[in-house]
Parts: sequence; C-alpha cells; structure tokens
Amino acid sequence: MEFSIYSDKKFMESAFLEAEKAYEKKEIPIGAVIVYQNRIIAKSHNLVQTLKDPTAHAEILAITSACANLDSKFLSEATMYVTLEPCTMCFGALVLSRLKKIVIGTSDPKTGACGGKLDLASSNLYNHKIEIEKGVLEAKCSGILKEFFRNLRIEKSKQNENLEINLN
Amino acid sequence: MEFSIYSDKKFMESAFLEAEKAYEKKEIPIGAVIVYQNRIIAKSHNLVQTLKDPTAHAEILAITSACANLDSKFLSEATMYVTLEPCTMCFGALVLSRLKKIVIGTSDPKTGACGGKLDLASSNLYNHKIEIEKGVLEAKCSGILKEFFRNLRIEKSKQNENLEINLN
Repeated sequence: MEFSIYSDKKFMESAFLEAEKAYEKKEIPIGAVIVYQNRIIAKSHNLVQTLKDPTAHAEILAITSACANLDSKFLSEATMYVTLEPCTMCFGALVLSRLKKIVIGTSDPKTGACGGKLDLASSNLYNHKIEIEKGVLEAKCSGILKEFFRNLRIEKSKQNENLEINLN
Repeated sequence: MEFSIYSDKKFMESAFLEAEKAYEKKEIPIGAVIVYQNRIIAKSHNLVQTLKDPTAHAEILAITSACANLDSKFLSEATMYVTLEPCTMCFGALVLSRLKKIVIGTSDPKTGACGGKLDLASSNLYNHKIEIEKGVLEAKCSGILKEFFRNLRIEKSKQNENLEINLN
C-alpha cells in the first residue's frame, strides 16, 4: 500500500512535468502519462494551441502513443496519471481504450466527466468501467493551472490598457 | 429547403463512400465528411484496426483534418456528415471543436451519445450546443453496418467449424 502511494505520487510527478512543458508553450498546463507494468509507456501534454487541434488533449495523445508502444488498441492493464480530470472526449476515449484506472491530480468543475461537471465514470452506460482515483498531488496540479489563468488575465488586462492608450 | 435536403443527401453520400473505404479495410464501416461554405474540407473513415488506435474514429480524424485545412482550432460554421451516430468521445470532440451541426445517417443504440444510448447532445452540460439532424440516407448507412457484422459472424462461425475439425 505504501509502495502504491509512493508510486502514484512518482508517476503524477511525471505527469506534472508534462504539464510544465505545456505551460512553457503557453498551452493550458495539463499533462498525462500512461503506466504499464510499473513503467511509463507514454507521456504527453496538451497541444491544442500549438497544433490548432481541439482533439490534441494530453490524454488523447497519450492513448495514441501508448497503443503504438504496446502495438495494441487496448490498454486493459494500464493506468493513466493525468493532472486534470478528463473531459467528455477524453473519458470516452479512455473507455474505448479499456484502460484499467485513471489517477487524477485535480478535479475540473467546468468540464470534468468523472464527477467534476458530469459523472460519466460512475454511470452504467458503458460496457467498460474504469477505476477512478482523485487528489494525487492536487495542490501542485491545480496550482499550475491557477497560475496560468492568473497570468493570462494579467496579460489580457495589460493588452486592454495598451489598446485604450492607443485609442486615446 | 429543397436545396438543403439535396445537399444533405449529397454530402452523406460522400460520408458513405468513406464508410465503404473502411469496409474494404475490414474496419467497422463508418465514414464522415466536414462541410464548410458548401464545400467538403475533410473526409475520413474509421481506422481503429489499421492504426491499432481506439481514438482513430472517423469523426476524430475528420476534426483534425478540417482544423488543419482551416488553420483553426474551431469549426464554428461547419457541419459534419457522419454515417453512424457519434459515441461519447466523438461527441465530446465535436463540442470542443464548436461545430455548428451534426447530420447523422443512422442511430447507434449501443454507444450513440446523441440520443441512441445516452443523450449528451440535448443536455445543458456543455458551453456549446450542436444542432443534430438524424436519418439522412439511413437505410444505406445502417445497411453497410449490418452487412459487415453479418459477414463477421459468418467468418467467425467458419473459423470455429475449422477449429472443431482440426480438434477432432
């Protein structure tokens, strides 16, 4: 059990490092890793702005990468560590991949599909059920998001000030 | 109005041609096209088996392709024509893309997220609402799926017979 908590934190740290990479690219800082047999087989971070692709969430990119790594369309024995609760698209993709477990850093009350905004994860609508664990490195995973959006607001308010100066 | 019905059928025919391409590759025959300003800007078909990627549904591939084509992460003025009702993953992706409208060939009572199995499309859970139209070229779109699964059953039963012969 202690080992499990230790490795949960360790793997979420890796997901967090991915979120930091997204942050540096001015992407919403979300990262994910997929673990199989106690080994990371895929790492990814949000690339929606960079790729101009709304499907380029960390989770989707990680699933594609993990499946390529295992040469399988199923991830039945794998666990995803993701810094923010998956949205509807990503939860749907994780069900399709038959992933065993999702470990979530912080909840998403705006778009989370595992209880944050809606709860697809506990519904009996799907032919595959995924274990859900929440709150691993929560402060860190939510902290980087808060910082990102705070900076974004400051930047926007500066732009508006400059616009006003130019208009005057 | 007549023009709209005409073009709905015309664009669904293009989606159906994509489903046929999937069929030829022994993929579940589902096809999609995305239309913007009365022009097809993306075509795709299910490639889950070929790519061994559970995210490689026709809709996801079409969104990525259409966004690349428009150089935009949003498809606000576009319509998707898809032969089978989108699943949870695909519906979630279409919401993220802010697509205007989904025209569906046939419903999916097993995994459809627009009323077939669950109804995410009429919920007020998302900050973007997509218009839904169903039943365009329904017989054709469901027919190819029925044929695919019938052939799959025949093939499996033949394999089982051969297995029994070999075991005897």
